[in-house]
This record gives sequence, structure tokens and C-alpha cells, in this order.
Amino acid sequence: MNEFGLIDRFFASIPHQREDVIFGIGDDAACLQIPNGKQLVVSTDTLVSGVHFLDTWPAYDIATKAVMSNVSDIAAMGALPCWMLLSITIPELDESWLSDFSKGLQEAMAEFNIALIGGDTTRGPLCITITIHGLVDSGKAILRNGAKAGDLIYVSGMLGAAAAGLLLINSDVINKTDLAVLTNKLHRPTPRVDYQPYLSGYAHAAIDISDGLSADLAHICKASQVGACLYIDQIPIHPLVQQYLPNEALQLALSGGDDYELCFTISPTLRNDFHEAILHSGLMCYPIGVIESELGLRAQTTTGEILPCASLGFRHF
Amino acid sequence: MNEFGLIDRFFASIPHQREDVIFGIGDDAACLQIPNGKQLVVSTDTLVSGVHFLDTWPAYDIATKAVMSNVSDIAAMGALPCWMLLSITIPELDESWLSDFSKGLQEAMAEFNIALIGGDTTRGPLCITITIHGLVDSGKAILRNGAKAGDLIYVSGMLGAAAAGLLLINSDVINKTDLAVLTNKLHRPTPRVDYQPYLSGYAHAAIDISDGLSADLAHICKASQVGACLYIDQIPIHPLVQQYLPNEALQLALSGGDDYELCFTISPTLRNDFHEAILHSGLMCYPIGVIESELGLRAQTTTGEILPCASLGFRHF
Repeated sequence: MNEFGLIDRFFASIPHQREDVIFGIGDDAACLQIPNGKQLVVSTDTLVSGVHFLDTWPAYDIATKAVMSNVSDIAAMGALPCWMLLSITIPELDESWLSDFSKGLQEAMAEFNIALIGGDTTRGPLCITITIHGLVDSGKAILRNGAKAGDLIYVSGMLGAAAAGLLLINSDVINKTDLAVLTNKLHRPTPRVDYQPYLSGYAHAAIDISDGLSADLAHICKASQVGACLYIDQIPIHPLVQQYLPNEALQLALSGGDDYELCFTISPTLRNDFHEAILHSGLMCYPIGVIESELGLRAQTTTGEILPCASLGFRHF
Repeated sequence: MNEFGLIDRFFASIPHQREDVIFGIGDDAACLQIPNGKQLVVSTDTLVSGVHFLDTWPAYDIATKAVMSNVSDIAAMGALPCWMLLSITIPELDESWLSDFSKGLQEAMAEFNIALIGGDTTRGPLCITITIHGLVDSGKAILRNGAKAGDLIYVSGMLGAAAAGLLLINSDVINKTDLAVLTNKLHRPTPRVDYQPYLSGYAHAAIDISDGLSADLAHICKASQVGACLYIDQIPIHPLVQQYLPNEALQLALSGGDDYELCFTISPTLRNDFHEAILHSGLMCYPIGVIESELGLRAQTTTGEILPCASLGFRHF
């Protein structure tokens, strides 16, 4: 296998239209122009075969998921994605696999105007590391540590679909069309870059939901040194999860990973302005609870009882 | 294994003193301030166990090599290294190994004032991906494609030591002290960041020698659409390579990888100024040939004969 030939053939040919790429693939390093008044945000994520995906997944979906899960980290900062590096180790030179992977990569990047600016291809067990760069107005990045007691907690969409897709993938209780909706959320998540103007305009703190709502909200709480109370009857559960897994639906929505929706907090004084802005944007958002000064995650049940989340038996999938 | 705990314990505690890191490890992405008048350079490299290093190497050396080989790519652009992300997959949670690795990482980064700004730890076969960022004055990045016919070709140091270290590592013909000098070049290379002011002031094209001089010079020639002629008797061969492997010494210097010296080209009109600047800097450099408009790599032998490099039987180690 010729490493250089591989990179050239499958990745260097991916077009990009960004004028801020002074030099992309093909040198010791890429060279990029950062506009004045912007700060750079950078994140990296590794996807390992057998851990984050199965090698039986279509190469197109593996590439899509790798890009989208990284874009989601940039969206969670209130930033716009710009440039990406791809390091991939592959066990063998399978041209058909690489071609599909490259197609998935290219289409996912094109969706968000992301340029591939570098990478590294080596032989080894299938493993994909993407480093993604985004830009945000200086001082406007939304961190996890900005939540304040009294803030309202929101999520950007319905939860539990990806985790349900994983559970039902070999089940015969679900029809093919519905299964495709769920597995699409698992294999081809849509990061919420569309929320960017609203996060940077309104949010105190934000995170993307990759590990599950309760785990990721706990990251916000820990970083902000606050606690939270969730209203159980307001958690937006995906209707197909409700339909096919009614007994596990709440748990899947609270603890299932891979949804790549955003969870964020907003000052109650901005509530009306935010709702109006979201209404005009055509987006949906779901208020699900409130930040409190008392540490820990609690949930208010449908009967009004308040219980520690841990006692509700939530676990990670 | 708790991924977050691992990252926190071994990597997040690595201190950094850079004021341009607005937010480092601990959020969805790091946030960085790029000074006006600078461009960003970015490179990524993956090191796979059994390919780029052996899992029998000390963890400290694996970390050192991973950092240094990445820093070398930034040095080859005439840029200064600033920030790094580390993605590591490890087969098991071995605290002693991680502690040594973390120490190697920290010391290598401290040598060049590099901040660790993010990363990802996953379970899997040992594999290390580093993405490194550097800064360069706008428009001053040195690419591979700038070499012009007539340019003088230089290398920044003596060659062949790392490849000889690999050959002699289990040999009993070499004494321990000399072997340590050679294997140190292999395990703990020193990227030539010290050349940064001279590259950006003088060089038309540059590359770091990771694959071997002839292969890397060929990358410059290909990118610049030129050829080159090397003066065989001017190739700086490391004296220990000459001493212990006299028959293979030239081939090791020309084709052995992992030296991480720089190869660069300079206009003949700047020759005297460059030599004077290098003399004052206390650095050494070695003129080894000339760029020509005729494509291909040639070598002028000690008898004055000019032969295609390929016919001299150079091969990659």
C-alpha cells in the first residue's frame, strides 16, 4: 500500500470552495487564514471499529457518522465548522470501501461547507480520528461552565431515536420504514449547526448530546458547579421510541447516546425573546427543566415528586 | 475504564502557560486566539504500534517521538508550534504506562512551549494521533512547491543516525554509549524549530526528512515541478554511521527515515547572506546539491559521473 497514493486518490481530490484555505492537502501542514474578530475552536474525536461503529456498517455511514459527530462538537460551541483533518488506519486497501467512505465524507462535509485540509493514512485496525476546526466571534464561544441557577434548560430536538435504532436493528417487531428512521439517526446524525445564531445570541452554556441527556447535562452542571431539575413529562421522546419501546422510552430519551441534539441553558429573563427568535427561525426547541444551585441531577415526576435521577435507574447504553 | 477520568488525570493536568488559549481541555472544543498578521498551520500524524514504533519501546519514548515528529512538520513550514490535540487508543488502562507516556508528552511539549488543548481517549489497539497547530507570519509559510531551478539544496544536520540505530539496536558490534546516541535520534528526535527564522527569511521550499532524504527531496521536486542533482561527497553522514556501517552509510543517509532534519532550497543570490546568518546563529547547515529544471533525482558521484539516483540502488528502510 502506498500511503501517498491512497491519500491523493481518495481524499485530496475532494473539492473545497473556501477562500480561507491558503494551502490544503499536500504539504507538511495546511495553512489557513483566520478572519480578524474571530476565534478558532478545535475538537477531535476518535471512532474505533467495534466501539463506536461496527465494521459491518456501510463505509458511507461510518464516514458520515465520523464527520457529523465532530461537527456536533463545533455546533455545541455556538461556532460554524470550517476545516477538517482525517487520520484513518485501515487494515487493507479495499478500493470499493475507500470509495464509499470518501463519498460519505465528501457529502457530509459539503453539507456544512467544510474543507478537508490534511490527514494521514496508515495500515492498522480500522480507526478514524477527525480533528475539526470552527470559527466563532471573539468572546462568543458557548462553554459548558456558564450555566447559572435559575437558567432554563432546553434541548434542540426529540431524543432516544439513535439508542432505539441500536436496540431494534435486528428486531422483527418494527417495520422497515420506521426502523430506517431510527437507524438513520444512529448512522447519519444531523448536528445542530442550524442553532448557531441562537446559541451565541442567548445561551449561557451548551453541550451536544452524545453520551445521553442525563450524562451530558451532568457535564454542564459539573463544569458550572450547579445542579439541575428535569421535568419528566416535558422530555421530548421521539414518537417511534414511544411507539415501539414504550416501557424503555423515557430511559432511552434520558440516557441513550448518539442523538447529537444540543442541550443548553438560557437566562429566564431572555426566555420570551428566545422563544420568539426560535419561532421565527422555523426551528423547534423543548424546555425540559431548570438549573438549580443545589448540586446533582434531580427529576420531577409526573406526580410532582422530586427524585434524584440516579434513583430512577437511568443507565448508559 | 472511564474515558473522562483518564483524560482528566493524565492529560488535563499538564500545565500550559499560553495566553492565547481562551479555553483548553474540558469542553466540546478548545477555543484559541490567533494574533492579527498570523496564519494558522495545521498538521496531523498517526503513529501505529508495530508500524511506527514497537510496543516494547518505553512509553516515554513513544510519546516523545509522537510529539517531535509532529513538531517537525510545523518546523518544515517555517512556523512555530503552539497547540496540540492528542487522540490515543489504548488496549488497557495501565497507569504506569500512562504516567510515563504523559511525562514524555509533557516534557516534549514544554521544550517548544506547546499547550495540550484537547484529545480523545478510547479503548483499542495502541495508536496515537496528534494534531498540531503552529503560527506563521501571514504569507510566509514555506511550502514544498517553491523550489526553482538553480536553487541550492541544503540539509540542517547529519543524516542516517536514526536508520542506523534501528539496524544496530540488537547488534553487539557497537558499544552502549554510541548505540544510545543513535537510538536517541530514533526515539527522541529533535525537530529543527531552531531553523524557523532562517527558513522564513530565506527558503523557497522546505520539507522535513521523515521518509529519507531522497524520498523527501523528491516530494519537493514533484510539488515544484523541478529535478535535483545531489553531490554525493557532500551528503553529511553521521560519523557513527560511517564508523559502524561504512558500507551502508551513504545509503542510510540518503534513504533512511526518521532523522527529522530539514531539507530546503535557497536562491543562489541569497547564498552569502544565508551563510552569514547561519554562521551568526551558531547553527550548522550543509549544501548538498542543486535544483535543476530537468525532472528526476540525479547524483554526482565522487568521480564526477552523474547518475539517476534510482540506479545507485537506494531503497527505503
